[in-house]
Amino acid sequence: MTYCVGMVLDRGLVFMSDTRTNAGLDNISTFRKMHHWEIPGDRVLTLMTAGNLATTQAVVSILDERTKAPDDREPSILKAPSMFQAARLVADTLRDVIANHDQNGQQASSAFNATIILGGQINGGPTRLFLIYPEGNFIEAGTDTPFFQIGEMKYGRPILVRAYEPGMSFEEAMRLLLVSFDSTLKANLTVGLPFHYHLYEADSLTLGRSGRIELDDPYFQTVSQGWGDALKTALDSLPTFDLG
Amino acid sequence: MTYCVGMVLDRGLVFMSDTRTNAGLDNISTFRKMHHWEIPGDRVLTLMTAGNLATTQAVVSILDERTKAPDDREPSILKAPSMFQAARLVADTLRDVIANHDQNGQQASSAFNATIILGGQINGGPTRLFLIYPEGNFIEAGTDTPFFQIGEMKYGRPILVRAYEPGMSFEEAMRLLLVSFDSTLKANLTVGLPFHYHLYEADSLTLGRSGRIELDDPYFQTVSQGWGDALKTALDSLPTFDLG
Repeated sequence: MTYCVGMVLDRGLVFMSDTRTNAGLDNISTFRKMHHWEIPGDRVLTLMTAGNLATTQAVVSILDERTKAPDDREPSILKAPSMFQAARLVADTLRDVIANHDQNGQQASSAFNATIILGGQINGGPTRLFLIYPEGNFIEAGTDTPFFQIGEMKYGRPILVRAYEPGMSFEEAMRLLLVSFDSTLKANLTVGLPFHYHLYEADSLTLGRSGRIELDDPYFQTVSQGWGDALKTALDSLPTFDLG
Repeated sequence: MTYCVGMVLDRGLVFMSDTRTNAGLDNISTFRKMHHWEIPGDRVLTLMTAGNLATTQAVVSILDERTKAPDDREPSILKAPSMFQAARLVADTLRDVIANHDQNGQQASSAFNATIILGGQINGGPTRLFLIYPEGNFIEAGTDTPFFQIGEMKYGRPILVRAYEPGMSFEEAMRLLLVSFDSTLKANLTVGLPFHYHLYEADSLTLGRSGRIELDDPYFQTVSQGWGDALKTALDSLPTFDLG
């Protein structure tokens, strides 16, 4: 499993992903699920993946043109004229990779599936955020649905639904996401630290603050330990049920 | 889908269930999923069901001995000498009902599955809470896992994990459960009001306070509306991420 969130704020885009992959509960590994493409001043694209790891790694490799010698690579994602075209390219690549596995005589086609969040900005256009399905189609975030989750989304969703505000700062968004990720960690063994994040400032057209949150990160520890007490205080602020 | 929670407190047992059933998103109905058996001074049993409605209604009807004329009914669940025996009776009934549907030439056996929470007390024994699987086996709640959820459990789980305390009052437990149910309602259309609840006081051996919470219940409205603000205040009580 996996947990990734992409979020549209007034200030820009926020991305966070976990790193755990598993083939059975007794076979877990750590892999990066967040990938970036950047041409400073022209475009920044961030992609996060959930689903079959062979599929998602193949998609990223093909987008990078790693089939070619390093000097010959001119990834077309770096030439797409708009975010919509970039999303179409990623979606077509994803569908082709899945179809290719299927054609090769494999049976469990659903096992090859993957879902992708793609967000970023290309010079001349606004910041945009897409959710790309294994069928090769996609949807875009809007004001009514300003964030996308992929993977194990249920445990961490209630806090996002309640506390998301488009005007929040990056600092507040990181706090919200870490609470959402912590709730998921506590309930699903197939979501695990470390987490990657990227905070893209709208119109900067350059990779924003990004990093990796490890288990011993002092801020994560503060949030994880403080949230239990904060929730209890929140509950206590509501009146109790009246048994008469 | 469904959402039911059974919880062990120092004071007794707390049960809450929703009432929505669906056969597709365009075919929803309201059915009671909480059932009681009581012999005042001797025993109180509460049963909640998730899964195929035909299966769970058949289980309850058989436990009630509705195959017999009303005057001939002596439900054996009212004669079980212990909660363990009562759980075994319910589990065997559940397994038999599912097996019977399967035998009758039906294919989609998983579609007949159901899961049951059974809790209560029989004179001479302690309060006990069981989770009964469609295979006819069951587990009992203990101090490490003092509550069971069935149905759509994910959205409402983080708050239970964080805020449950064995020493909480019935009034506090109702508040906690309504927050958990409200988080689930907001995310899954197949969980719906009204909710049923039963608060069983340990060693009372009589049906405790029970009732039905409708959408326009003023207390539920207060909790539902107040929780969003309370959560935001809780988040604000944690330090924000330091971007340096």
